[in-house]
Amino acid sequence: MSHYDHIKAAAYAANMQLPKLGLVVFTFGNVSAADRALGVFAIKPSGVPYEDLTPDSMVIVDFEGKTVEGKLRPSSDTRTHAVLYRHWAHIGGIVHTHSTYATAWAQAQRDIPIFGTTHADHNTVDIPCAPPMDDAMIQGDYEYETGFQIMNCLNDRKLRYEEVEMILVGNHAPFTWGKTPEKAVYNSAVLESVAQMALLTEQINPRAPRLKDSLIKKHFERKHGPDSYYGQA
Amino acid sequence: MSHYDHIKAAAYAANMQLPKLGLVVFTFGNVSAADRALGVFAIKPSGVPYEDLTPDSMVIVDFEGKTVEGKLRPSSDTRTHAVLYRHWAHIGGIVHTHSTYATAWAQAQRDIPIFGTTHADHNTVDIPCAPPMDDAMIQGDYEYETGFQIMNCLNDRKLRYEEVEMILVGNHAPFTWGKTPEKAVYNSAVLESVAQMALLTEQINPRAPRLKDSLIKKHFERKHGPDSYYGQA
Amino acid sequence: MSHYDHIKAAAYAANMQLPKLGLVVFTFGNVSAADRALGVFAIKPSGVPYEDLTPDSMVIVDFEGKTVEGKLRPSSDTRTHAVLYRHWAHIGGIVHTHSTYATAWAQAQRDIPIFGTTHADHNTVDIPCAPPMDDAMIQGDYEYETGFQIMNCLNDRKLRYEEVEMILVGNHAPFTWGKTPEKAVYNSAVLESVAQMALLTEQINPRAPRLKDSLIKKHFERKHGPDSYYGQA
Amino acid sequence: MSHYDHIKAAAYAANMQLPKLGLVVFTFGNVSAADRALGVFAIKPSGVPYEDLTPDSMVIVDFEGKTVEGKLRPSSDTRTHAVLYRHWAHIGGIVHTHSTYATAWAQAQRDIPIFGTTHADHNTVDIPCAPPMDDAMIQGDYEYETGFQIMNCLNDRKLRYEEVEMILVGNHAPFTWGKTPEKAVYNSAVLESVAQMALLTEQINPRAPRLKDSLIKKHFERKHGPDSYYGQA
Repeated sequence: MSHYDHIKAAAYAANMQLPKLGLVVFTFGNVSAADRALGVFAIKPSGVPYEDLTPDSMVIVDFEGKTVEGKLRPSSDTRTHAVLYRHWAHIGGIVHTHSTYATAWAQAQRDIPIFGTTHADHNTVDIPCAPPMDDAMIQGDYEYETGFQIMNCLNDRKLRYEEVEMILVGNHAPFTWGKTPEKAVYNSAVLESVAQMALLTEQINPRAPRLKDSLIKKHFERKHGPDSYYGQA
Repeated sequence: MSHYDHIKAAAYAANMQLPKLGLVVFTFGNVSAADRALGVFAIKPSGVPYEDLTPDSMVIVDFEGKTVEGKLRPSSDTRTHAVLYRHWAHIGGIVHTHSTYATAWAQAQRDIPIFGTTHADHNTVDIPCAPPMDDAMIQGDYEYETGFQIMNCLNDRKLRYEEVEMILVGNHAPFTWGKTPEKAVYNSAVLESVAQMALLTEQINPRAPRLKDSLIKKHFERKHGPDSYYGQA
Repeated sequence: MSHYDHIKAAAYAANMQLPKLGLVVFTFGNVSAADRALGVFAIKPSGVPYEDLTPDSMVIVDFEGKTVEGKLRPSSDTRTHAVLYRHWAHIGGIVHTHSTYATAWAQAQRDIPIFGTTHADHNTVDIPCAPPMDDAMIQGDYEYETGFQIMNCLNDRKLRYEEVEMILVGNHAPFTWGKTPEKAVYNSAVLESVAQMALLTEQINPRAPRLKDSLIKKHFERKHGPDSYYGQA
Repeated sequence: MSHYDHIKAAAYAANMQLPKLGLVVFTFGNVSAADRALGVFAIKPSGVPYEDLTPDSMVIVDFEGKTVEGKLRPSSDTRTHAVLYRHWAHIGGIVHTHSTYATAWAQAQRDIPIFGTTHADHNTVDIPCAPPMDDAMIQGDYEYETGFQIMNCLNDRKLRYEEVEMILVGNHAPFTWGKTPEKAVYNSAVLESVAQMALLTEQINPRAPRLKDSLIKKHFERKHGPDSYYGQA
């Protein structure tokens, strides 16, 4: 028994969704689940295949990135998670994958244009692609700086993390987050689908226009606005 | 027990086909099943994952879009379904998905050209893409107007809904329909396959010609004409 | 019991491979299995979903295309099969599908260029795409003429059906054949894979050269030549 | 019982991973597992479908390519494996597949550019594509020469087989290797994923730059360097 069983169970369940949704192979990708009151999160151990994971193999880490409990070494991306939890008070889960289409957009160093209502149901803006870090940051505390690269990109574009729950890190791959780890996983799957459809849209019509503002507003508000009527009350 | 158990069962079964056919993820998409004599249809509740659906969770709605029976809120697209049922006397099922390739064509705002016999087996014309609505319609009763956008597009092109059972709504995604919900689901899967093959055809040969009229006529008539010889008598 | 149980069983088993290999959805596609001594073949009934097929539902047809035994109407493509069996003495199975990539090449009306050894393991030439028929043939006995269109295309290019066991019918879709229905199904799956890789090859390098003759010869002969050393003796 | 049961079991298990990972269909592809002390390797028999394989059907071959034990004929690519084992003292497994995307790059005769960290996690260089062999080599001892073609390509580029564990053979398909057959299979799956993402990257941005050196170095070293912190100690 541990004080942390609830977030270990949540992180385990969310990690196991990744291969089911086709977002990872082998040991790629990781999900964390935070308990904000306790100031810690549970995260996938590094380099362990999904089929060998158990709730107990999850590692407990604090928001400074220090391991609090667990026999295994945490994900090599742990410090990126820690930075985001420390600075973003209202998130409870973070996901990192190398899913095929989202990663291709990250490698291409392009924002994903908002072409349709599937995108607008989840975001009112192009999905941002943060530029690759400068060499000093890469050679320094790389995963820690990755967290700042993500935050700086949102700040530069005046986006709020509560509204835009996904980003591409240029040359690398996507990160998503949410109030819960389940929501963060959902966001990773939505991002992958939106990324694929955006490429196909450009292939079908290289001059496809971005979605017009009235439709962006309508679709986002019917799902997320004060008078939303999507889902159950 | 309810007067509506038969359409609840039919709507449930048809909705459950969507994830099996790879046409939806999570809560995206919805199927309705109408009883035209009773003047109502059963439709998927809004925002409920497919694995949690039961026949009893289907919501019964009349052709004005008012809920008649059911504890849950119906799909946010319900009013689009209602408009189509009210105006099209001979349909018994409607499907809306955000399937990958059909949605990409909708986002690209292009009709799907008729390139081959797979297309001609089901339609004699390019699959129409309705233009995005004007801003007044979007800001008004959006889902209601979506229904009119679909009907107006067919009318403008002098197409009959009994013959062309599928459409793309520009910037949004496909709708299909049919005499039964099963047929409407079948049409959604056919549309997705035709949409993928049309993109691939243009990639293989950017100057690929449309199918010639004699082949369009032959394939459609062998499946749907008075002397059709496809399927069982 | 029937004289034809062996070819009914063979045709049934081969038909059931098509959805497993991802080559068909719904009722698309059909396989036949011939008994050349009896002068008949067993073929899928028209418009019956794969999950409803049984060996007994196969229809027995002679090489003139006349039904010999069976309660159901045979595949609408039956006369194409009959023509090929009548003229090609050494084939025992025929497959027709609308598999995604092969059909896209047929719609694009292009031969599939021989780009690599995967192709050369099975064919020494580009996979031919027969031109669409002229209107008189289409309006006449369409499926019968489709058989001649296939044979004429091979003849025009001086190809032997014993060596080239696959073809695209322009604007339509692929046909494959072989000594057995299993081999014909295998050929359909190989064709689909070769068709996908050829498109990807052109996307990666629009000036990709065809495979050079020495490699074509080597790969085909190690699998099919008199001194072949692929497979078991 | 045989002295070779351990490598038969290893080769069997690794071969069975290929269809599970979507890297092969039918009889395509082969994995071998070496015992360097005994100077032999176990390899898939030629032309046998994966579902019919058993550990006992694996063939034992020495590093000259001669069969030492086994009733079946070994893979037609056996001599390529033998050459590599004989010259590369530190590998224990080799894989050959015709996986879709890697084969398409081989057919296009292009190296796979290093576009992102998924690639850099496994390799610091573009994945090399060896040129097709000259005609004399093809007409001679083809599979034997294929092994030299692979070694020569690495030598020409001053790459070490211990660091670059994958290659494309121009016009043909990929080979991968590793200290164990499991690692070689892992490399084949990574290569296929990297190959797909590289094509998508170029489609999204035809001017996508290669990954910068600082990121290449960082990602490779965090997984493979002396101070690596990926995986468990």
